[in-house]
Amino acid sequence: MNNFIFFNPTKVIFGAGELNRLGEEASKYGKKALVIKTTGPIQKSGIFERATKILNAAGMKVYFLDDVTPNPKFSKLKEGVNICREEGIDIVIGIGGGTAIDLAKGLAWGALAEGDLWDYFIRKRVATKSLPIGAVSTLLGTGAEMNVNCTITNEETKEKFGVHYPVSFPKFAIIDPELQLTLPRKLTAGGMADIISHVLEGYFDGCEDTPLQDRIAEGIILTVLENEKILDYPNDIVARGNIAWASTLAINGINDAGRGGKDWDAHTIEHEVSAKYDVRHGEGMAVVHIAWLYYLCKKDPKKFVHFAERIFGIQKTSGQTDLSVGIKGIDVLKEKFRSWGLPITLRELGVEQGILPLLAKDASKNPEGGKLDPDIVLEVLKSCY
Amino acid sequence: MNNFIFFNPTKVIFGAGELNRLGEEASKYGKKALVIKTTGPIQKSGIFERATKILNAAGMKVYFLDDVTPNPKFSKLKEGVNICREEGIDIVIGIGGGTAIDLAKGLAWGALAEGDLWDYFIRKRVATKSLPIGAVSTLLGTGAEMNVNCTITNEETKEKFGVHYPVSFPKFAIIDPELQLTLPRKLTAGGMADIISHVLEGYFDGCEDTPLQDRIAEGIILTVLENEKILDYPNDIVARGNIAWASTLAINGINDAGRGGKDWDAHTIEHEVSAKYDVRHGEGMAVVHIAWLYYLCKKDPKKFVHFAERIFGIQKTSGQTDLSVGIKGIDVLKEKFRSWGLPITLRELGVEQGILPLLAKDASKNPEGGKLDPDIVLEVLKSCY
Repeated sequence: MNNFIFFNPTKVIFGAGELNRLGEEASKYGKKALVIKTTGPIQKSGIFERATKILNAAGMKVYFLDDVTPNPKFSKLKEGVNICREEGIDIVIGIGGGTAIDLAKGLAWGALAEGDLWDYFIRKRVATKSLPIGAVSTLLGTGAEMNVNCTITNEETKEKFGVHYPVSFPKFAIIDPELQLTLPRKLTAGGMADIISHVLEGYFDGCEDTPLQDRIAEGIILTVLENEKILDYPNDIVARGNIAWASTLAINGINDAGRGGKDWDAHTIEHEVSAKYDVRHGEGMAVVHIAWLYYLCKKDPKKFVHFAERIFGIQKTSGQTDLSVGIKGIDVLKEKFRSWGLPITLRELGVEQGILPLLAKDASKNPEGGKLDPDIVLEVLKSCY
Repeated sequence: MNNFIFFNPTKVIFGAGELNRLGEEASKYGKKALVIKTTGPIQKSGIFERATKILNAAGMKVYFLDDVTPNPKFSKLKEGVNICREEGIDIVIGIGGGTAIDLAKGLAWGALAEGDLWDYFIRKRVATKSLPIGAVSTLLGTGAEMNVNCTITNEETKEKFGVHYPVSFPKFAIIDPELQLTLPRKLTAGGMADIISHVLEGYFDGCEDTPLQDRIAEGIILTVLENEKILDYPNDIVARGNIAWASTLAINGINDAGRGGKDWDAHTIEHEVSAKYDVRHGEGMAVVHIAWLYYLCKKDPKKFVHFAERIFGIQKTSGQTDLSVGIKGIDVLKEKFRSWGLPITLRELGVEQGILPLLAKDASKNPEGGKLDPDIVLEVLKSCY
């Protein structure tokens, strides 16, 4: 285990019906709330109307940043910053998944930042203050409600970069499984793959002697697998709650504290895909991460044997190599994703074959990435085309 | 799983050598630090001299609350409060285990509280503000460095009560496994039992559908069991680090979030023992908790079958009852404690047989306890005498 700092001051309010606490929590920070309003099925769920009523009842005036689409765009961030500055917003509230909450974080520090805001993504400047942020999570996978991650796509430059400013912890995160009952099957499945993906980046980062972190990671993955029935029984609120909490813990820092802290390579590669094709992050991860795992396993299969045994009960028998057992574990995970209805090739995501070299090149230049070798990335992308 | 709120803003600084950050962290809160100085082996470790140098180098003046003994006493709390008030202390730093850190918490809010301070333990008054608290953990088990728990013994009334004020989260917790290398074997073993005990209170609280919490709890227990070699190889800093992190996560709220949130009955009973006999908490728990588990298992063995399988690989075969398998799991845990050199009877702790009815009666009156039936407590105490 490595030395580490763990700090996470977000107050989590978890459980069915807890959306009702939104007003009580948000009004601690002022009178004017800017709510991020994403497009898609969430619009019809009635949640924005409910949230508005609850905030109004707590004496708050509600503003909206409208028409926000998946893979939040830099232009929207700037639009939200303008609203904050013009209206004197006191708190920014993301209601939704990573799209809404990441954008809330970005414009909350953006409102108090100077100069060209893209500078803060390309590491030219650093954000050191932020408006308060509130998060209401309605999606699985993102975990954005309890971390500082903020990933934004610049439509002009076709770049998708993440920043992780310590000022970006939401003051509170409401995780109300009732709000997830209307999630479409495909979004649920993508979220489940995303949770597993978040955990596996650290699990296979090469750091040794992290037995407790590994148990927590395995516990998160097993909780997702053992509650997969929500795909067929979307109203099973108990199972949904279990996956929702797994989703938060997968990426709130606790599972990775003391690990290698290396860059998240599979995510870096996927970000190139979703920056250029606007695919859902969870679906992109289902494709790219499996391909990346095969690559890592071929380099060093030892931990993959451990994974295959702990997650899928695959025992290595005499005569089997570590590599063959490790590969078998990944095969089973890939089949699991397929059974959930997720894509398993880039082609299914609509990616054009000719763009793979560009994706590989750009992934290797991502300031968040770990100096990826473009030739290796290209091989991996080809392997899942 | 139940609805819950999880909030823990303590900044954890973990790893060998991290004591050196004490000055940098503490000096954020002012110039005058009161350090709790416990008696015992820690005095000879040189840690107080090192801490003083580090704090001085950061421009801080250091005061001490001296001669603090295990099971921190209310008289010492009052003495510390006086120092805080007279000297204008800016931050209270507990260096040690639960004794030092619990006392630091108590006198940090005590310094700003009004009236009779024992009123705050018997639920007559509530503390709502506190001086900043820093924690340096040198002991396994307590977990006090990352929670709000503060348990104090009133020598006059022979009461040992805990309070859990939200203002009592340490601002920072330094967990430096190097500081634990000189821990005597018996303290290490007691700490290991205490960690397991912290996890088992919630694990067997009767709340259902907590699969992720259970995996985390099992991961903590297995990490302790799989790193028990520190008893024979006290300088194994990797294994020590793993148990130290398990110790913190066992009682920082993450493992219990969403569980029943019931009172910690085994702890309530043990507190009576250590209030009256000044035994080490970890050793007291090793005796009392095992006895309590047998009682719970006889009432409802289902979860104990799960425990026996997940922790000790005990499979239930056809023809076996749940009860017999559950009991077998507890037997193995008890043997483990014995193999670590821990007491397994109250007699070994020096408890007099005639006092058992009084212990049972007082446990049932503890304001922290869950309305324990004194007859049941007496049976349990007799069973481990």
